[in-house]
Amino acid sequence: MTGAGLIAQPLTAAAFAPYGDVLEVAGAPDRMINANLCGRFHDRARLEFLDGRAGISLFDAEARHLPYALDLMERHPLGSQAFIPLDNVPMLICVAADTHGRPTTPRAFLSQPGQGINLLRNVWHGVLAPIGRAGRYAVIDRIGPGDNLEEYHFDQPLTVEGPQP
Amino acid sequence: MTGAGLIAQPLTAAAFAPYGDVLEVAGAPDRMINANLCGRFHDRARLEFLDGRAGISLFDAEARHLPYALDLMERHPLGSQAFIPLDNVPMLICVAADTHGRPTTPRAFLSQPGQGINLLRNVWHGVLAPIGRAGRYAVIDRIGPGDNLEEYHFDQPLTVEGPQP
Repeated sequence: MTGAGLIAQPLTAAAFAPYGDVLEVAGAPDRMINANLCGRFHDRARLEFLDGRAGISLFDAEARHLPYALDLMERHPLGSQAFIPLDNVPMLICVAADTHGRPTTPRAFLSQPGQGINLLRNVWHGVLAPIGRAGRYAVIDRIGPGDNLEEYHFDQPLTVEGPQP
Repeated sequence: MTGAGLIAQPLTAAAFAPYGDVLEVAGAPDRMINANLCGRFHDRARLEFLDGRAGISLFDAEARHLPYALDLMERHPLGSQAFIPLDNVPMLICVAADTHGRPTTPRAFLSQPGQGINLLRNVWHGVLAPIGRAGRYAVIDRIGPGDNLEEYHFDQPLTVEGPQP
């Protein structure tokens, strides 16, 4: 990985699929419930909780800004991790492939209001980064024993810039 | 249960505790993460998924209005069900105790922006009711086989009014 720049792309389910799920109301619902007054988009996250269970926590994160210096990535070998925005604050989502235990081929996405994400188990990602203002998020991740955090610090930060207008 | 009126109360963790959890950033975080730039309010929902697993779905629900006619309650004998608002639309949350398989002693709560809820397994509740405008919600509930829905229709709807100013 070099210190070169990266341009954040709009978050779409198709582009994000190798890394996780986009949690959003899009397309037709799987079924209508509650006397046809509610559409259910059913079971849209590839959750995985090894040797543990699902929990819901809240994260209250300070604002980050673009361009953003990506100097750390992390991954959770024992479980998936979902982020659902409570304040409609976009997230900068940096993800990467893995090569021999190091994050490689980084990509960056910028979410839109109404979009949450579920990161697949063991996918390299940057820390929660609300862009422009502070944000609160519901987080669905693994609760259980053992070390579920691996970090990788870059020698030189990667600069992530916003989408081109 | 009579056809008399009910006044929705502000949603607070203490008042809602017999029925479920309020998912919100409140008080001090359990720990700071991400170089002290993020507070984690850890594991705040009493999740339960019998003979199944957790899933994340999206609900897209039409607007309801106050006063609201509560004519149906339901419960899920096999799992808890959490609702996290994506649009900051308040929810009218009607819950009740159980007496011999019927909802009794109903109560109504109105959520504020930034508040989600987790309904405990088998607690009687009204259907998802965004107040004032349509709302999208992430829903964490049980995915699995079997009948996880029990409904109770009232002979006469209960009128739920908004909080007194």
